[in-house]
Amino acid sequence: MDQEIPALEGLVCPVPLPHREQILMGHGSGGKMSRDLISRVFLPPFDNPSLGAGDDGGVVEVEIEAQPGEVVKGRLAISTDSHVVWPLFFAGGDIGRLAICGTVNDVSMMGAMPLYLTAGFILEEGLEVSILNQVVASMQTAAAEAGVIIVSGDTKVVQKGKADGLYINTTGFGVLPPAVQIGGAHARTGDVVILSGTIGDHGIAVLEARGELGFETQISSDVAPLNHLVQAMLRASQNLHVLRDPTRGGLATTLNEIAQQSKTSILLQESRIPVKPAVASACEMLGFDPMYIANEGKLVAVVSPEDSEKVLQAMRLTRYGEGAVIIGEVQAAPAGRVLMKTTLGSTRIVDIPSGEILPRIC
Amino acid sequence: MDQEIPALEGLVCPVPLPHREQILMGHGSGGKMSRDLISRVFLPPFDNPSLGAGDDGGVVEVEIEAQPGEVVKGRLAISTDSHVVWPLFFAGGDIGRLAICGTVNDVSMMGAMPLYLTAGFILEEGLEVSILNQVVASMQTAAAEAGVIIVSGDTKVVQKGKADGLYINTTGFGVLPPAVQIGGAHARTGDVVILSGTIGDHGIAVLEARGELGFETQISSDVAPLNHLVQAMLRASQNLHVLRDPTRGGLATTLNEIAQQSKTSILLQESRIPVKPAVASACEMLGFDPMYIANEGKLVAVVSPEDSEKVLQAMRLTRYGEGAVIIGEVQAAPAGRVLMKTTLGSTRIVDIPSGEILPRIC
Repeated sequence: MDQEIPALEGLVCPVPLPHREQILMGHGSGGKMSRDLISRVFLPPFDNPSLGAGDDGGVVEVEIEAQPGEVVKGRLAISTDSHVVWPLFFAGGDIGRLAICGTVNDVSMMGAMPLYLTAGFILEEGLEVSILNQVVASMQTAAAEAGVIIVSGDTKVVQKGKADGLYINTTGFGVLPPAVQIGGAHARTGDVVILSGTIGDHGIAVLEARGELGFETQISSDVAPLNHLVQAMLRASQNLHVLRDPTRGGLATTLNEIAQQSKTSILLQESRIPVKPAVASACEMLGFDPMYIANEGKLVAVVSPEDSEKVLQAMRLTRYGEGAVIIGEVQAAPAGRVLMKTTLGSTRIVDIPSGEILPRIC
Repeated sequence: MDQEIPALEGLVCPVPLPHREQILMGHGSGGKMSRDLISRVFLPPFDNPSLGAGDDGGVVEVEIEAQPGEVVKGRLAISTDSHVVWPLFFAGGDIGRLAICGTVNDVSMMGAMPLYLTAGFILEEGLEVSILNQVVASMQTAAAEAGVIIVSGDTKVVQKGKADGLYINTTGFGVLPPAVQIGGAHARTGDVVILSGTIGDHGIAVLEARGELGFETQISSDVAPLNHLVQAMLRASQNLHVLRDPTRGGLATTLNEIAQQSKTSILLQESRIPVKPAVASACEMLGFDPMYIANEGKLVAVVSPEDSEKVLQAMRLTRYGEGAVIIGEVQAAPAGRVLMKTTLGSTRIVDIPSGEILPRIC
């Protein structure tokens, strides 16, 4: 507990000031620091089963009056995300497309079909209206592609220097069919791990847009709405156990979350994880591991082994699942850990990053 | 349309550069500039009946599978708000209480009982964690009072100087009973206009917290969750036509919105509009009109005349409706206008403010 600090006008403080813990960029990384902040600051006061489950969104029950006196219970999947990506535009997308796809995907990863989104804008004084117009047009294109409707909006303006162009919160929800039970805790020993395509594209595209690569790549962000892909998978199998999009913290962080939530181990085959050559070489030059780079149009699925081929086939027939591959399997031990069989034949632990790798990537 | 600007390195531009319209603080005022921005930038691409209605949130239909093959349709009310109030703490509340109450109230004003909220945080690097803890504790207290549950959250961190401590988006929803038809377009000639209590408290409390008053008042913000008040009103009458909370832009802006949406005129009795003496004198010294100052715990109701006494009695039995009074009535003409019978006996037009009166009040 902080002690009272006496007023010491003009004096050098004779005793060390109590440490006042501050928010660091790493608290927004999606890695260990984020989880530490969430578990210390947000979960204790807000504690409830939905939030505590640690999935991409919450599942809630609502009661609908079918006829006077007759109530029907249904489930909704809800997810919220604030988008602060910088710069606002990058190859393959922009903050508007990201804001729609990010929330569409989080709702989809719970097994629900996203229906409605809200959009809350925080605009910085001085932002050019033409930029806002471009972002809004991009949101509408992405919303039309996903088939979602924006039903409520809000606009706030803050003084110059109190934001960075614009920030967008989107919150989405969809109806969860009664049969669907998908969540990070449902991975089982023997399940197959499927990845929908190449990793690292989004993060490298944003880095290039910042001019931080020092060289040019042909990499575009993969930002895309995955709800139609998920619906195709749900039609193909009733044995989808986990769906998750590997955004902040990348594939490594997502798989660790699944291993921890389900108290299983995930064993990956390094040779099977698709990485575009340009992404691989950018990562090599920068000292990054593509396993930790954010994606915005990819998903990981954990599926019963008997259905894995069916699911894979269904995925490959969709626009954003063409590159789907099996990358590993779920094992009993070591529980909570992700292991990787490297191309050299050794096995290494794939850990969660502690702090920030790439800030403001989404 | 902007013309291409040629590169003019080192030269003084020989022709006037095309005007590039920028976002101004007034675009976040809730007044005419806000509405102009919304109608030009957001409504055309996002156009749909729910958003176009211009209410505090959207109403959407969902289909719930009651039994295999049997689908029941229900309505949900949804609303989103980003909160950027500065300073974070003020007499009577803080950004956390405001973030919960603002969205609880917007959902309530559609006639729905808010059930679930999401919370998206944008944190500035360097923010003290102890401040975040206080804000989160305040959110939980307000959520418990309102009886809502926070089911999904998100945390982003931006660099120092790219936010102002913290911003909070909350999005909420509730089930809308089949019989409820409440909205700004439903005011009818002869209806009675009820206000739940004094106006201007929130705005003046925030101004005082900024040290901008130059004198001390005893004014606390009225920020409060109004859902229980609304439920009491709904139990008392099935003839509530409009409910709205007069936040940004104050009572004057809210009543103008109702008059315009319903194509009616609202005639107010100035002598009946309750203003605390301290708020009245602060406004007088600053040259403000309390009619334009934000409230965060008040509502306006437009009710059938035969039910107005019942509604008033029900309101006065609740914590946040004790000071409820009738302040005016709905007339046919001049359509879209708000008029006020002053204490001196004259009648004046109550207009909508154009730009910003008090920035970042919510």
